[in-house]
Amino acid sequence: MFEIIDRDGLARIGKFTVGKKSVETPALMPVINPNIIVISPSEIYEKFRTYALITNSYIIYRDLDLKEKAIQKGLHKLLDFPGLIMTDSGTFQDHVYGDINIDFLEIAKFQRDIGSDIITILDVFTEPEFDRERVENAIDETYRRAKLTKENLGDVNIAGPIQGGIYPDLREKAARMMNSLDLDYYPIGGVVPLMENYRYRDLVNIIMSVKMNIDYGKPVHLFGAGHPMFFAFAVLMGIDFFDSASYVKYARDDRILFPDGTRYLDDLKYVPYPSPYLDRYDLDDIKSMEKEERVKILAMHNLYISMEEIERVKAAIFENSLWEYVEERARSHPSLYDALVEIYKYNEKIDKFENLSKKHPFYYTGKESLMRPLVKAFEKRIIKNYKYNKKICFVLDSKDLKEYSKLIENVDAHFLIRTPIGFVPYNLLHVYPVYSAIFPENCEYYDNLNKILESIDFDLLVSLLNKKFDDEMEKVLNIQFKKKDMDVERIKNVIDFQFGYGAGDALLDGNLRIVKSKNTGMIRNIYLNDQHILSMRNDGLFTLKLYGGKILHRKFSYPKLRTVVTKESEEFNLKGKNVFARFIVDMDPDLRPYDETIIVNENDDFIGVGRTLFTRDEALKIKKGMVVELREFEKRE
Amino acid sequence: MFEIIDRDGLARIGKFTVGKKSVETPALMPVINPNIIVISPSEIYEKFRTYALITNSYIIYRDLDLKEKAIQKGLHKLLDFPGLIMTDSGTFQDHVYGDINIDFLEIAKFQRDIGSDIITILDVFTEPEFDRERVENAIDETYRRAKLTKENLGDVNIAGPIQGGIYPDLREKAARMMNSLDLDYYPIGGVVPLMENYRYRDLVNIIMSVKMNIDYGKPVHLFGAGHPMFFAFAVLMGIDFFDSASYVKYARDDRILFPDGTRYLDDLKYVPYPSPYLDRYDLDDIKSMEKEERVKILAMHNLYISMEEIERVKAAIFENSLWEYVEERARSHPSLYDALVEIYKYNEKIDKFENLSKKHPFYYTGKESLMRPLVKAFEKRIIKNYKYNKKICFVLDSKDLKEYSKLIENVDAHFLIRTPIGFVPYNLLHVYPVYSAIFPENCEYYDNLNKILESIDFDLLVSLLNKKFDDEMEKVLNIQFKKKDMDVERIKNVIDFQFGYGAGDALLDGNLRIVKSKNTGMIRNIYLNDQHILSMRNDGLFTLKLYGGKILHRKFSYPKLRTVVTKESEEFNLKGKNVFARFIVDMDPDLRPYDETIIVNENDDFIGVGRTLFTRDEALKIKKGMVVELREFEKRE
Repeated sequence: MFEIIDRDGLARIGKFTVGKKSVETPALMPVINPNIIVISPSEIYEKFRTYALITNSYIIYRDLDLKEKAIQKGLHKLLDFPGLIMTDSGTFQDHVYGDINIDFLEIAKFQRDIGSDIITILDVFTEPEFDRERVENAIDETYRRAKLTKENLGDVNIAGPIQGGIYPDLREKAARMMNSLDLDYYPIGGVVPLMENYRYRDLVNIIMSVKMNIDYGKPVHLFGAGHPMFFAFAVLMGIDFFDSASYVKYARDDRILFPDGTRYLDDLKYVPYPSPYLDRYDLDDIKSMEKEERVKILAMHNLYISMEEIERVKAAIFENSLWEYVEERARSHPSLYDALVEIYKYNEKIDKFENLSKKHPFYYTGKESLMRPLVKAFEKRIIKNYKYNKKICFVLDSKDLKEYSKLIENVDAHFLIRTPIGFVPYNLLHVYPVYSAIFPENCEYYDNLNKILESIDFDLLVSLLNKKFDDEMEKVLNIQFKKKDMDVERIKNVIDFQFGYGAGDALLDGNLRIVKSKNTGMIRNIYLNDQHILSMRNDGLFTLKLYGGKILHRKFSYPKLRTVVTKESEEFNLKGKNVFARFIVDMDPDLRPYDETIIVNENDDFIGVGRTLFTRDEALKIKKGMVVELREFEKRE
Repeated sequence: MFEIIDRDGLARIGKFTVGKKSVETPALMPVINPNIIVISPSEIYEKFRTYALITNSYIIYRDLDLKEKAIQKGLHKLLDFPGLIMTDSGTFQDHVYGDINIDFLEIAKFQRDIGSDIITILDVFTEPEFDRERVENAIDETYRRAKLTKENLGDVNIAGPIQGGIYPDLREKAARMMNSLDLDYYPIGGVVPLMENYRYRDLVNIIMSVKMNIDYGKPVHLFGAGHPMFFAFAVLMGIDFFDSASYVKYARDDRILFPDGTRYLDDLKYVPYPSPYLDRYDLDDIKSMEKEERVKILAMHNLYISMEEIERVKAAIFENSLWEYVEERARSHPSLYDALVEIYKYNEKIDKFENLSKKHPFYYTGKESLMRPLVKAFEKRIIKNYKYNKKICFVLDSKDLKEYSKLIENVDAHFLIRTPIGFVPYNLLHVYPVYSAIFPENCEYYDNLNKILESIDFDLLVSLLNKKFDDEMEKVLNIQFKKKDMDVERIKNVIDFQFGYGAGDALLDGNLRIVKSKNTGMIRNIYLNDQHILSMRNDGLFTLKLYGGKILHRKFSYPKLRTVVTKESEEFNLKGKNVFARFIVDMDPDLRPYDETIIVNENDDFIGVGRTLFTRDEALKIKKGMVVELREFEKRE
């Protein structure tokens, strides 16, 4: 069972549970060859605190002695590993050495019988150079086997590998076929040759094609991707599991893994990323060790560095800075830069998974940062929800705000402000990502002026970029200077931006009271007719209070802003419990992760307000965990 | 005494020696407050293998008990530290708490008397907000004190801090004044407030202004710069020493140092860059520790992470990949990106320090990579040395080389090939950086076509970019197809590119024999009249052999390609010894680090050939170590 606990866009921190064993994702499973153990499973469990590994059931199966022991003692005792054990099926052996003479059902049943926690179907490997026909045949055969395996195996976790070579459309097709079987776990296969040749751009296209067609509630594993260079990129695209034989394979060749690439032991004088197993002071000792001892030390280092990178990526998800981190990592190899630019091409597809407000400030780290989906999503929401009818639209530069404060505060007009992240309405300047974005002096600007202008209604455009506003102009434009209520206008703009155009009028229609922070003077709470409707968060957006939710519920018709829950859930929610997976009936498809939502039952009766962790597609699919964090609920008589 | 051992552009690995104690640079000296020891000097020496620290002589001086002990036992015994100890003078205390009531000579003598290895002058601190006049006064007073201190102190290592606020011209002036005193060590002072406010762009201007006016043979220290974020940038600009009180200061505030920034302990759930002292599994324990114990652990972590970053930077110098690394680091904070772009503005000044051939392949990591000084230096050398008189110049794309091979191999013309790194003559495609450069598919191109076209002489330009060359065109152009000797032409072009226009004609005038590798078919050795004149290196350039050197010595007049040595050196060099500092009389100012050079005496008599590690300005200044690695020498009768 897979539960998603935290996220940053498509990337997520999850928990995969089998019985009492569980592992937190993203996770790297070390590959253990039961015949040649370099780092023992118990060391992996204890020293590396790594609670999942992968081993090859075929290697056990073909060795009479191991097979016997595995059947008698079970896999976990055989390997002396109390954590989660996934088994592979011999596909790669079949692929490399030809017919391995085993029936796909037989090896699946064997995996089950020795107590594997995740059983892998014997799929058909696809090489990058395979032609379409051969790949299609492999997909069909893999599907056939998966279907029969599922039918024959009973209640176990089955992993259905997705093949498809380098053809995105075939990967998509394979993903859809495999997904239709509702398996428990989806590895992406046939990618090792791409990893080895730095073909990260191809990998992006493969992962995206698969990921967009697989149930978001299921874990996805990138088979054989054991080099830390690509972890952050894969996780950004929603990969949950990796496995690594690399830590040992590279160690045998005296090659050392680092997050930015591989280096030969002999080429090292300084150790760019030291570990407890390898630093500059140990180098000479290690170089002169016996082969076996050296392989062990290097394998320990390689595994440590790989685990460290997983930890780094988790920290980035938790901080909501994964895009920043990937943009940094992209600079460690040109092929990774290529992968980054390729990822941006999927902006339209990944857009909906992006939370519009993040814990981490927006960092500009090059013009590439302006290609992040967040920038487009922000622009899109402005275009959709910032619609007013005012006579004049002024265009200013953010550097000139002080100079024009009189104009801004006294004239009833649109003010579009040029910031590096694009043109933003003045009243949304304090909203994430603008308010906390950090831009260097030396930077390019994103230009969305025309797109925003098209969305608003005005008669006269006055561009004051690098110009002066003087008395002369005042006369020509025939402008009325009259002190505005800046607060109310801003609140209205933010409400519309956040909840949809028209929400502002609905929420502010009555006797308004605005409470500001005594220390900072910032807007904090908003009351309508003495009822608390909104609180302003640090990111400039609002928390929806119960009474505010009721107003929006009346204002907007189904399904806007709704999370629809079952009768069963309703009872719990009315007692203050959060909304959990499996109780979701429907959801507004425009909701993004961490958006405010109104919880209703199937008759659209109001239940309460909360914050969702998922998009509609995700929420309908996931099977475990919280979907909406309930904030306030209706007290029914 | 300071010796430079290795380099990558302005960055260098050095060795600073005082008596029997020495420390490798770039180095971070932990600050030790003798009154409040968190990590003890012996732990620093043993656990962190850090062989230099800095302490404040004023804190010892003003504490009667400590002062007494220091005078009796000496500083090294007082602190129990066998490594190198630098002392600061109380400047910062004077600046923060007002008049510290001590004479600058008295505190300098005190430092000497307690056995400090590097004695710091009591300088006058300059804050970023100080006006010019105040800064100028501080510079003058600091200079006056430095001069008197040097006159009064005898044979000790004196550090003369360079102040100047945020005024690059005053920093330059201060550097020149201080440099005129020929001190042993130059700290750059007054930068902590800039570091704390992420004003890395200002720091770039300050460091560059100082560095360009300080004897290249002397170590330069960035005072108080203890955060690992900026280490790589500072080293790239030629900084040798850092000191850190940050590791303790931040620990006291529960703030944790990471190479990409600072995080609060309470904000951590995952540890992005774990250390032996702090990882995710220790977090809860550490959070609930007693303050004192926690400060120690966090200080250990902070120091470890800082030292790791120094090690990472050293690895980059050793690999010749520091520009790549800095471009990666620049993405971890927008202010670092700003610093990177600011550094490029000094391209003209730092150009000459760049080795034109590097061990590490050129990595394109964004369009910023095309702003590296190496790209301009490569272009400059092409423009200067690629000058031929041919009727036609063809412009092709590197992707079309195969298609046009007949044209290239049979027509006597210039062929300029468009590569991401700019237009490059066909015959130089196999030379560093082009041959090993790695470019993503998604990348911008550097356009130097016009600049290169201006430098060559032709009648007709045929641009075949995205066009076809057909029979029609052949007729119009009246082209003669005739098999060329590709090897000789290429060798000539490379020789001219490397040694200067005309060198090719000189070196190839006679009976030529080209020896190629049996395995790869690549050119390896070149003989003229049966004398070995050149060997081709892996980077596509030549190693100059003795006979080749003699020819170039005849061909080019003084000082071209020369390293001029003293009579004393000549005797040693003629016995096969390398050329050492202090024996250099002069050098061709066009020589770059790692260029081939001809060694001559003051009468311009030929001595031998070798490879220089330094530019002229550097070579004339440094006092210790090898300047030219001798390869072959004249056997005189």
